[in-house]
Amino acid sequence: MTRTVRLAVIPGDGIGPEVVQQAVRVLDAVAASADLLVEKTSFSLGAARYLETGDILTDDDLAAIAGHDAILLGAVGGDPRDPRLAGGIIERGLLLKLRFALDHYVNLRPTVLYPAVPSPLANPGEVDFVVVREGTEGPYVGNGGAIRVGTPAEIANEVSVNTAFGVERLVRYAFAKAASRPRKKLTLVHKTNVLVFAGSLWQRTVDRVSAEFPGVAVDYLHVDAATIFLVQDPARFDVIVTDNLFGDILTDLAGAISGGIGLAASGNINPDGVFPSMFEPVHGSAPDIAGKQLADPTAAILSVSLLLDHLGLGEAAARVTAAVAADVASRGGAARTTAEVGDAIVARLAED
Amino acid sequence: MTRTVRLAVIPGDGIGPEVVQQAVRVLDAVAASADLLVEKTSFSLGAARYLETGDILTDDDLAAIAGHDAILLGAVGGDPRDPRLAGGIIERGLLLKLRFALDHYVNLRPTVLYPAVPSPLANPGEVDFVVVREGTEGPYVGNGGAIRVGTPAEIANEVSVNTAFGVERLVRYAFAKAASRPRKKLTLVHKTNVLVFAGSLWQRTVDRVSAEFPGVAVDYLHVDAATIFLVQDPARFDVIVTDNLFGDILTDLAGAISGGIGLAASGNINPDGVFPSMFEPVHGSAPDIAGKQLADPTAAILSVSLLLDHLGLGEAAARVTAAVAADVASRGGAARTTAEVGDAIVARLAED
Ligand SMILES: CC(C)[C@H](C(=O)O)[C@@H](O)C(=O)O
Ligand SMILES: CC(C)[C@H](C(=O)O)[C@@H](O)C(=O)O
Repeated sequence: MTRTVRLAVIPGDGIGPEVVQQAVRVLDAVAASADLLVEKTSFSLGAARYLETGDILTDDDLAAIAGHDAILLGAVGGDPRDPRLAGGIIERGLLLKLRFALDHYVNLRPTVLYPAVPSPLANPGEVDFVVVREGTEGPYVGNGGAIRVGTPAEIANEVSVNTAFGVERLVRYAFAKAASRPRKKLTLVHKTNVLVFAGSLWQRTVDRVSAEFPGVAVDYLHVDAATIFLVQDPARFDVIVTDNLFGDILTDLAGAISGGIGLAASGNINPDGVFPSMFEPVHGSAPDIAGKQLADPTAAILSVSLLLDHLGLGEAAARVTAAVAADVASRGGAARTTAEVGDAIVARLAED
Repeated sequence: MTRTVRLAVIPGDGIGPEVVQQAVRVLDAVAASADLLVEKTSFSLGAARYLETGDILTDDDLAAIAGHDAILLGAVGGDPRDPRLAGGIIERGLLLKLRFALDHYVNLRPTVLYPAVPSPLANPGEVDFVVVREGTEGPYVGNGGAIRVGTPAEIANEVSVNTAFGVERLVRYAFAKAASRPRKKLTLVHKTNVLVFAGSLWQRTVDRVSAEFPGVAVDYLHVDAATIFLVQDPARFDVIVTDNLFGDILTDLAGAISGGIGLAASGNINPDGVFPSMFEPVHGSAPDIAGKQLADPTAAILSVSLLLDHLGLGEAAARVTAAVAADVASRGGAARTTAEVGDAIVARLAED
């Protein structure tokens, strides 16, 4: 029986539309054999629309998007030097607003170094871990303020908000993820020796939830030390659970050591299924190379694999991942256009 | 004419005493030829003393230390699994307290990949940059709190405090540092698209102070992107200026890519000279290998070079750095004891 999935597509800015186009092709290519009908609605959101209309994400936009089963997002954010876009107005008003409004409390970011993919590390070893980054709390809540702005007496504060509610549901998800993986290992990353209130909450939560998962080995690293291990011995990691900001930093580093941010996929997940989850490459909109077919769509395509997995279509997800793995293994140094990468992956899917 | 320098020595915990012993030998070895008399007072502070007496850093300790011209610190912090030391009580009560009380607003952390030193990066290029990390503000101020602790309704907040006063003096120091270096390049690292109040203060301050240093090229990177460049192209960096927490994270990563944290030195500097500055390796107390002569004292020895530089003894500082560079170049894979590394570097100083 054919299943229908209503997909909201947000191509976004810069290279977003190009990479999303290839991701959608790949999705369509696997959908048929998975008995899936994907009904797409495209939302034209991002810096371009904001500069034209002054709207970033209206209540109507949000309601329309929320009515879908899932979201595929390319990248958002315009020219960083454009003063009209200063202070991450698009990133916050669109990307973070979606994550918060749709309660994407799990920001899932797998890191796999596929065979034959070059890493900047001399001896990366077998890299296969996933960062479970909190998505709705921490220093991302927008709870900052400033007084006497522009004067020598200016004070600017930023508040990281952490709740037992928010940390526990995330930590429980991370433990379940670890329990489902062969190595069954979870590493909490925080800075408990300095951020003692938040750190204590995270550490106590991990300790408590760990009793429910006796098969999962638990480890702790300060965030600074975690970056050392990510370049000296990334193979030690299985599941990393961490806060919003530390997760942001660690996943860019993780992308860099595993073949570059062009391969890093992510899911912004509402595990409760109350709101649609959103899948997007970790990379940004890269306005400098936009429209030139220079962008690598692989991260967007791997995000489709995460989307399929989330929909319970593990087999289709695995087909996409396998096609990507085969493609990246055969890449060598030859430059291909965005569409050519899509062509190659779609061709592999047709073959398998 | 012989100059006398009163040095407070805090060997600290774990491997601290071992590495400080070698650092002091090196200091003594160069002092004579620099017409320097180093009067040392040793302060027995750290986890061991705290567990014995309940004192971490008394007002008397602080006053006595503050009466010196400079401080050499090994490492502090006991067994991280000891519940009596949870929440970084030693790190905060001793290390951070010294940094704050002695107004060490510049945390200076050079990163140099010395010739023939192995890096985990396949193609590191020429790595020679310095991180100017803020040392007295940011999320390190201890301005957090929690309510309903231990209940499902717990909320734990952490506040990052940033002031125009604190950011500007640090940024000005960083620009002066950049102006004194051949490449004259400064990169602000922050997360201005999310931490908008603090980010705006940092960005505006850099923009304003930059007018005083027209010869310095200015660049900006989000902290997540900065970690990518640190592994993909670290040679692009010259001077990085950043906040306390981002600097903590980036300098461990910087240590990792440049031969390991065993080579990373740092200075906690009060540029105004009102309080003594403090020099310490970036690494921790590593209680698991303490007392076994397994620790590499190089970071502590390079911290002596920073100390000499701070005292205006640039030539003596350069001699220490050159001796270290020559030693690390000849290391190969042979394991040496902590003392043997000290021996080798002292021997090179005697020769030059
Ligand atoms: C664009 C930015 C707000 C975003 C973040 O910080 O979360 C990005 O870096 C990411 O990791 O998805
Ligand atoms: C021990 C800890 C408090 C300290 C810090 O976070 O500053 C250390 O990591 C460092 O970088 O010197």
